[in-house]
Amino acid sequence: MTVRVPVVERILSANDQLAAANHARLDSAGVFAINIMASPGAGKTSLIMRTVEALKEELRIGAVDGDIATTLDADRIAALGVPTVQINTGGTCHLDAPMLQSALPQLPLAELDLLIIENVGNLVCPASFKLGVHRDVLIASVPEGDDKPYKYPVMYRGVNVLMLNKMDVLAAFEFDVGYFRRGVEALNPGLAFFPISCKTGEGIDDWLAWLRNEVKEHVPGNTGAYR
Amino acid sequence: MTVRVPVVERILSANDQLAAANHARLDSAGVFAINIMASPGAGKTSLIMRTVEALKEELRIGAVDGDIATTLDADRIAALGVPTVQINTGGTCHLDAPMLQSALPQLPLAELDLLIIENVGNLVCPASFKLGVHRDVLIASVPEGDDKPYKYPVMYRGVNVLMLNKMDVLAAFEFDVGYFRRGVEALNPGLAFFPISCKTGEGIDDWLAWLRNEVKEHVPGNTGAYR
Repeated sequence: MTVRVPVVERILSANDQLAAANHARLDSAGVFAINIMASPGAGKTSLIMRTVEALKEELRIGAVDGDIATTLDADRIAALGVPTVQINTGGTCHLDAPMLQSALPQLPLAELDLLIIENVGNLVCPASFKLGVHRDVLIASVPEGDDKPYKYPVMYRGVNVLMLNKMDVLAAFEFDVGYFRRGVEALNPGLAFFPISCKTGEGIDDWLAWLRNEVKEHVPGNTGAYR
Repeated sequence: MTVRVPVVERILSANDQLAAANHARLDSAGVFAINIMASPGAGKTSLIMRTVEALKEELRIGAVDGDIATTLDADRIAALGVPTVQINTGGTCHLDAPMLQSALPQLPLAELDLLIIENVGNLVCPASFKLGVHRDVLIASVPEGDDKPYKYPVMYRGVNVLMLNKMDVLAAFEFDVGYFRRGVEALNPGLAFFPISCKTGEGIDDWLAWLRNEVKEHVPGNTGAYR
């Protein structure tokens, strides 16, 4: 006798349900959203500032900034003249979909093309909470060391594009770019990769070209999975 | 009429209960234990290796290494000839007291003076989980930036000693040591502080002197709070 095991379709978690709602809301407003993740101090705010400065004449940009405490980063971004919302998580180690849901009404979504979200500095927890964005961006940095893909695989496995920041100090650290990339490739084959320096500007144009293209190619409601 | 509200003593959480048990076990074995926390790549393993190399002839040292995945760090430490246990947390972003409880029987506690525990690389979550150790150690690093005490106050508030690693590259980064220290002082007045470079050895002797003294001065069962 064969026992038939009932199979139910995957039930969305509460966070995933809200992420799907955030995604639909962004899509209906015509806003392409990216979620930037990294260790503390890898260069999230610096990359956002470089990106806003370069693109703010051609795209209407907004920002959401997640931190445990303070508005230090949001203040820097807002000073560039883009609408910015700070999320202070209290002690929570990541942004989640309810937090983004609360932030969205504070932004003029109908007047934006691109929303840049800066997650809490953390190489572990943010990987497990979808927000409802279109692309997940990870920034590694040279001083962190070349072994991070091997030690934080969940984060590296899930993202759409990887930057390696602080290339200007590569010579001062023992960082084997080949070893780093082999670790990445094993987890996330073909991942878009840009070695950059937010300090000198090295590689930023390649990242901007990638981002411009993602925004341009995006067809709302036709993206499949939200992130 | 005065209503008397019953007050019960603070009930320990499950984690705290196990942390207290770990602490008692370490004390009864005469082992002084430290918990090293930091962002990914700040230099936890490097500091442990410097410390083991310098002290292994005068103290009997063991190590517990916490990582999401791999035994890369534990392998490096074990290669120095000290008993080392790896804890792979799977996806969990911190060590906790049950994990340490599982690791302790794998170590020859009766033959150790000092147990060095390397937590998962994370500036948020490990601060909220006591392990049962005697001292909490935080490593900041120059490339992370000077604003980290302001943005990760829970971690900075709770530790017993702070290292600022990678001082050898201070000139290559915009890092204001005075601003950094003012942030620390506001959260944790009088905190022991050592600027170091695990690469060049700068400042390591000061850290070793501090650690030697803590081990020497420790009276088991007389420490008050476990960490």
